Amino acid sequence: MVVELVNPYDVAIHQFDEAAERLGLSQAMRAILRKPKRELIVNFPVRMDNGDVEMFTGYRVQHNINRGPAKGGIRYSPAVSLDEVRALSMWMTWKCAVVDIPFGGAKGGVICDPHKMSSAELERLTRRYTTEISLLIGPDSDIPAPDMNTNPQIMGWIMDTYSMHRGYSVPAVTTGKPLAIGGSEGRLEATARGVQVVAREAMRDKGMNPEDCSVVVQGFGNVGGIAARLLHEMGCRVVGISDISGDCIIQRALMFLRRCVILADLAA
Amino acid sequence: MVVELVNPYDVAIHQFDEAAERLGLSQAMRAILRKPKRELIVNFPVRMDNGDVEMFTGYRVQHNINRGPAKGGIRYSPAVSLDEVRALSMWMTWKCAVVDIPFGGAKGGVICDPHKMSSAELERLTRRYTTEISLLIGPDSDIPAPDMNTNPQIMGWIMDTYSMHRGYSVPAVTTGKPLAIGGSEGRLEATARGVQVVAREAMRDKGMNPEDCSVVVQGFGNVGGIAARLLHEMGCRVVGISDISGDCIIQRALMFLRRCVILADLAA
Amino acid sequence: MVVELVNPYDVAIHQFDEAAERLGLSQAMRAILRKPKRELIVNFPVRMDNGDVEMFTGYRVQHNINRGPAKGGIRYSPAVSLDEVRALSMWMTWKCAVVDIPFGGAKGGVICDPHKMSSAELERLTRRYTTEISLLIGPDSDIPAPDMNTNPQIMGWIMDTYSMHRGYSVPAVTTGKPLAIGGSEGRLEATARGVQVVAREAMRDKGMNPEDCSVVVQGFGNVGGIAARLLHEMGCRVVGISDISGDCIIQRALMFLRRCVILADLAA
Amino acid sequence: MVVELVNPYDVAIHQFDEAAERLGLSQAMRAILRKPKRELIVNFPVRMDNGDVEMFTGYRVQHNINRGPAKGGIRYSPAVSLDEVRALSMWMTWKCAVVDIPFGGAKGGVICDPHKMSSAELERLTRRYTTEISLLIGPDSDIPAPDMNTNPQIMGWIMDTYSMHRGYSVPAVTTGKPLAIGGSEGRLEATARGVQVVAREAMRDKGMNPEDCSVVVQGFGNVGGIAARLLHEMGCRVVGISDISGDCIIQRALMFLRRCVILADLAA
Amino acid sequence: MVVELVNPYDVAIHQFDEAAERLGLSQAMRAILRKPKRELIVNFPVRMDNGDVEMFTGYRVQHNINRGPAKGGIRYSPAVSLDEVRALSMWMTWKCAVVDIPFGGAKGGVICDPHKMSSAELERLTRRYTTEISLLIGPDSDIPAPDMNTNPQIMGWIMDTYSMHRGYSVPAVTTGKPLAIGGSEGRLEATARGVQVVAREAMRDKGMNPEDCSVVVQGFGNVGGIAARLLHEMGCRVVGISDISGDCIIQRALMFLRRCVILADLAA
Amino acid sequence: MVVELVNPYDVAIHQFDEAAERLGLSQAMRAILRKPKRELIVNFPVRMDNGDVEMFTGYRVQHNINRGPAKGGIRYSPAVSLDEVRALSMWMTWKCAVVDIPFGGAKGGVICDPHKMSSAELERLTRRYTTEISLLIGPDSDIPAPDMNTNPQIMGWIMDTYSMHRGYSVPAVTTGKPLAIGGSEGRLEATARGVQVVAREAMRDKGMNPEDCSVVVQGFGNVGGIAARLLHEMGCRVVGISDISGDCIIQRALMFLRRCVILADLAA
Repeated sequence: MVVELVNPYDVAIHQFDEAAERLGLSQAMRAILRKPKRELIVNFPVRMDNGDVEMFTGYRVQHNINRGPAKGGIRYSPAVSLDEVRALSMWMTWKCAVVDIPFGGAKGGVICDPHKMSSAELERLTRRYTTEISLLIGPDSDIPAPDMNTNPQIMGWIMDTYSMHRGYSVPAVTTGKPLAIGGSEGRLEATARGVQVVAREAMRDKGMNPEDCSVVVQGFGNVGGIAARLLHEMGCRVVGISDISGDCIIQRALMFLRRCVILADLAA
Repeated sequence: MVVELVNPYDVAIHQFDEAAERLGLSQAMRAILRKPKRELIVNFPVRMDNGDVEMFTGYRVQHNINRGPAKGGIRYSPAVSLDEVRALSMWMTWKCAVVDIPFGGAKGGVICDPHKMSSAELERLTRRYTTEISLLIGPDSDIPAPDMNTNPQIMGWIMDTYSMHRGYSVPAVTTGKPLAIGGSEGRLEATARGVQVVAREAMRDKGMNPEDCSVVVQGFGNVGGIAARLLHEMGCRVVGISDISGDCIIQRALMFLRRCVILADLAA
Repeated sequence: MVVELVNPYDVAIHQFDEAAERLGLSQAMRAILRKPKRELIVNFPVRMDNGDVEMFTGYRVQHNINRGPAKGGIRYSPAVSLDEVRALSMWMTWKCAVVDIPFGGAKGGVICDPHKMSSAELERLTRRYTTEISLLIGPDSDIPAPDMNTNPQIMGWIMDTYSMHRGYSVPAVTTGKPLAIGGSEGRLEATARGVQVVAREAMRDKGMNPEDCSVVVQGFGNVGGIAARLLHEMGCRVVGISDISGDCIIQRALMFLRRCVILADLAA
Repeated sequence: MVVELVNPYDVAIHQFDEAAERLGLSQAMRAILRKPKRELIVNFPVRMDNGDVEMFTGYRVQHNINRGPAKGGIRYSPAVSLDEVRALSMWMTWKCAVVDIPFGGAKGGVICDPHKMSSAELERLTRRYTTEISLLIGPDSDIPAPDMNTNPQIMGWIMDTYSMHRGYSVPAVTTGKPLAIGGSEGRLEATARGVQVVAREAMRDKGMNPEDCSVVVQGFGNVGGIAARLLHEMGCRVVGISDISGDCIIQRALMFLRRCVILADLAA
Repeated sequence: MVVELVNPYDVAIHQFDEAAERLGLSQAMRAILRKPKRELIVNFPVRMDNGDVEMFTGYRVQHNINRGPAKGGIRYSPAVSLDEVRALSMWMTWKCAVVDIPFGGAKGGVICDPHKMSSAELERLTRRYTTEISLLIGPDSDIPAPDMNTNPQIMGWIMDTYSMHRGYSVPAVTTGKPLAIGGSEGRLEATARGVQVVAREAMRDKGMNPEDCSVVVQGFGNVGGIAARLLHEMGCRVVGISDISGDCIIQRALMFLRRCVILADLAA
Repeated sequence: MVVELVNPYDVAIHQFDEAAERLGLSQAMRAILRKPKRELIVNFPVRMDNGDVEMFTGYRVQHNINRGPAKGGIRYSPAVSLDEVRALSMWMTWKCAVVDIPFGGAKGGVICDPHKMSSAELERLTRRYTTEISLLIGPDSDIPAPDMNTNPQIMGWIMDTYSMHRGYSVPAVTTGKPLAIGGSEGRLEATARGVQVVAREAMRDKGMNPEDCSVVVQGFGNVGGIAARLLHEMGCRVVGISDISGDCIIQRALMFLRRCVILADLAA
């Protein structure tokens, strides 16, 4: 049984320390890069469909903005924690720097269970959360994106809320919007395509032929689901998939690990 | 031996729940008031006199701003924690509301040991911290004040840093400044005077005569020291004082508790 | 039978022309003062309780801002029209100038029937209308107030919406708020008290004694209802009242006009 | 004789309703799209060359800004009306959406007769009108352009006035500026080129050969005049033209309608 | 013959150095206070009544803003120079500090001969100069006032120009406005009243009786003219006056200096 | 011996007048273009490494901003003067216009001797100077660049200081930054490359072959040093160089002037 026991921020710090050691970074630089620059916690009320008011806690963390505006997704999940958001914001800094785009790293999240909320409740939660973090976000300062359990519709609500505060449309305040209001083509499948590219290059590196590979995909949402299709198109044989609930499928999947395992979520 | 074991935020929540019960507040209102609206955590580097760069963590928490701009002090201490700042910001909301002034409640702090820092280091720390929280503070939004280990000089640095960002002087961004740049007369002894007034009214209520009272004062800084003088001027006999270090003095002081004990810090 | 046949803006222009003639104003000055400086019309959707989206039309007109920020109420009524709001904004300019306060004249309104809307619908309508006119309003530029069918609760929603856009509380954006968030004491009965004062002075001028006067009050809302009480307290005999619906009561009231008629709405 | 009897806004609504029906738009969407989001009316004084002050009425209407900043021209004409500007702003929304550029629809105008005004008077009118609508316009919110009786010189005045308010040059606040200060190449003949392209495609669709076509052009300004030249260059025979005054020319032109008539203004 | 040979900034520095010596100011403090913080020079075109464009040079100097917004007049004269404006701005710092009001010191001026310009030219010059210095001025940053050759009308143009940039009236951007738009009562005669008060106190100090004093006043504008009247009302015998042109009158005046000479401009 | 006797602003004006004569510019246009639009002088304190506070004088001059944001370098030198900065700002206007990029002309400088200052002192000077001129600079208004004695590191401090005031990174506030934070590739050698291109084109025009040319380069910093390398790479024979100090080398160099002299600094 696989249980998430580790604190993701500890993981991120561990990875960073190792890299810093190899790079020979100064102690001052290490001290600066180990901690996020800014962490905003907001507690805000949302009226539920049944008339009750519930309080929610949201985060927006900017790890580093030296190379440009902060960039990073917003996730909705009961498991969101400050340390998780911290770790993800740090990883965003490294990701942007590695591909050399002029952005820093940020991440946000709201502790909620979107699967138990109506669309109207999610809209009200999103609009209120956007208002609360609008101190930080903006096209020149910090640009959210979809992440776990958020999607183009939610990005559209963020853009609309931010735009209403400004008095005019600000499409650049978020990426991953619906195409009709300025979203990027290919954004929906982008993470899964990253999985495919990584898998392809790994196979090439190992001298493996896609046609000879069997693939098991863990997760069947925006990343795993599309990755399965793309790997199939690439010639791989997809022999197992799992959705969010499935322990046993993962256990069965372990048998296939002799050839090739794509852990979709790791590439997110 | 007196040890601070309790989490101040737990204390604040406990007090609030009790008051909410007596007031018959709705569940929604209780949920909203139990949590601060906004909590900003900032990690920032400061160059020390020896040339090293050290990272510091600061907080600014706004508990409630419905009645007007947030108001609350900034403390410098190794013991500062997010929960402490949360609790203090909540108490600021109640204090402002009880005396019916149009302000909400906030509090800030930096984890540092000001007794081990030079004046130049404290200035650099203050200026950088001010820059980092200037997202929140301002004459119309959130107005800091001196608190534990901060003083008029530090308020002057905050005002100057904020004013340099604006391009003109903004004296209203902080209270407790030096008189020469707009500080309030009587601000220095204000908290101690509150101690005196509370003691005087308590004595009146109990039918006690100040001349007949012996007083022990715990703490001998900005609050306790001045309170001792004011109580003395009121006619009380000050028979014991303690400074920040002193257990035994407090123990001896316990003997005087039959008549009258002023716990200065409680009134801060 | 009394029927509102006249266009209020024609009335306002007629009054102005007469006053301008007596004052000997230049043609240029008359041309400038006859028209409002700015008229903003907004069309905006509101989700109703049954799930439908309805479009509403709102107005905010600033007649003149030369003497200071514009000031004027917001009314909710099916009879609101651009010409009515224009006329009312012009009258606000004269009112502020006559009592020599440093404000200009403005007025706003939304075409809706607040008696047929739930409180939740009114809140959503108010919040959206506030967002749409927030280009114009603000403590330094234009400050709304309650008017026909709007009240302290609605002013509170306006203040809260505007404040959420700013990120901090802006109590000065509207007058007539609930006392708890900064409303003015005596504001509720202010218009009615104006009626009473005018009546008292008129009686004094005519040599009439309040105790000898019978009074009929047209309208029984915020103005007429309170005026009736105040006139009663002043010693008058209130012999007739009417509410929003009542023709016949007014007809009967005409019989009393030999002595004293207070048309409350004229003093609003 | 051709007389403009129809209200352009009625035309626009009629067109929209027909399109909405075919698209099967929801009632809520229809309600939202039938009305402009914002309509600003400004009344402002301009000093004429003879020293008199005259009042002018101007409009700026934003029909829809969901897809990006509003875009649309400004026209100067005695016939400008709020309904005309409303209709034109709505058409701008559709035009921008049809060619899939990230802009919304707006339009503006001033009631004046530019043919009877000196250049100095037009400059003062333009600068004052720009100041009055600068609540709305800007590179990120609403970008004017030349339209009937406005030209690059007037766009330059708009840009200069707006820039003086900002303290630095803002070329992006308007399109159709003189080339020297950032205007677009080809902008002057752009509308006429649209006429040519539409005509060419219509001929292709009908199987007509430009060389065989006789052309009559109604209007001889920025659109008709250049269109005549472009159609001539395309091989058409231009057999009739009319300027702003000419009824009889149009009547004669009717005889040529057997083959091909280009009504230039319709394509504007 | 009296000739202005001295550079006013040299005078100001000389005075400052003497005062600094007596106060024992540190070298760092002296270095900071000897120079203005900011000096803005603007060159701008104005269209003259004959159609020509002339360039004018204007200044706005802020000597010190530590105690609050800068405060200081604007003068129009052919003799305005950067050094004169520097000196005057420094004196404003001392004046505000001496009477302990929370303002810093500033001064501005335009090189022009207002006696040779029409009212329309002065208005255009004032409006353009205001636009050019609006980087600096504002109710919270720097507040102009009338000075040599500027008056309430010019302050009104400044306020109106600044307000048009903001979109709403900002009366607090300047003092000395016409009363009708928020000017201060008594402002017109304030400087002259200062002359009278200084003279009265000097007489009291010297044991002189106003009724026994003969007075000669140099200058007959806003300061000297009103001072002559106020001194007359105080009982003095005004035996000589001079206007801007008059050498010989001053020479005759020297004979009266045995008793009392009021040099009005020195008190400005 | 070569001595800089001429005032650079006189040179610039002389050049302009000659060009204006050839272009037949109107007197109004000449008057406008002969003077910078805005000149800001700032006096500011910097704490030196020895604890003393020294005052420095800095400038930022915008000659013309009609074609877009102002653009121009910042130089640090004891010889910086207002007239030098004025001349350089005017030349920037012509340079930007000649290569038809949408920028105006500006220049800045600080009177200081950077060769006698530590890196820490230069950082403090740069950060304070940036704060003082941040009224003017910004990506849309005025964009500094490296110039004499300023380099990518100093541009990085400018960007960081400006960004801290804004609360987010603003890389576009300056060009010539380190590549890692958004500097332009090739920027370091750009001026020298200009020297090379001008020399190459001059040789082509004169029918000279690079291989046959001997080259003497005056200056051996960012311009001359790199130009020498580039000319060498182009085939020229570099027979003489001089650094900042060297008279005699220049005298010897005169002997080579029969063939080809590249005065590198003139092309800067």
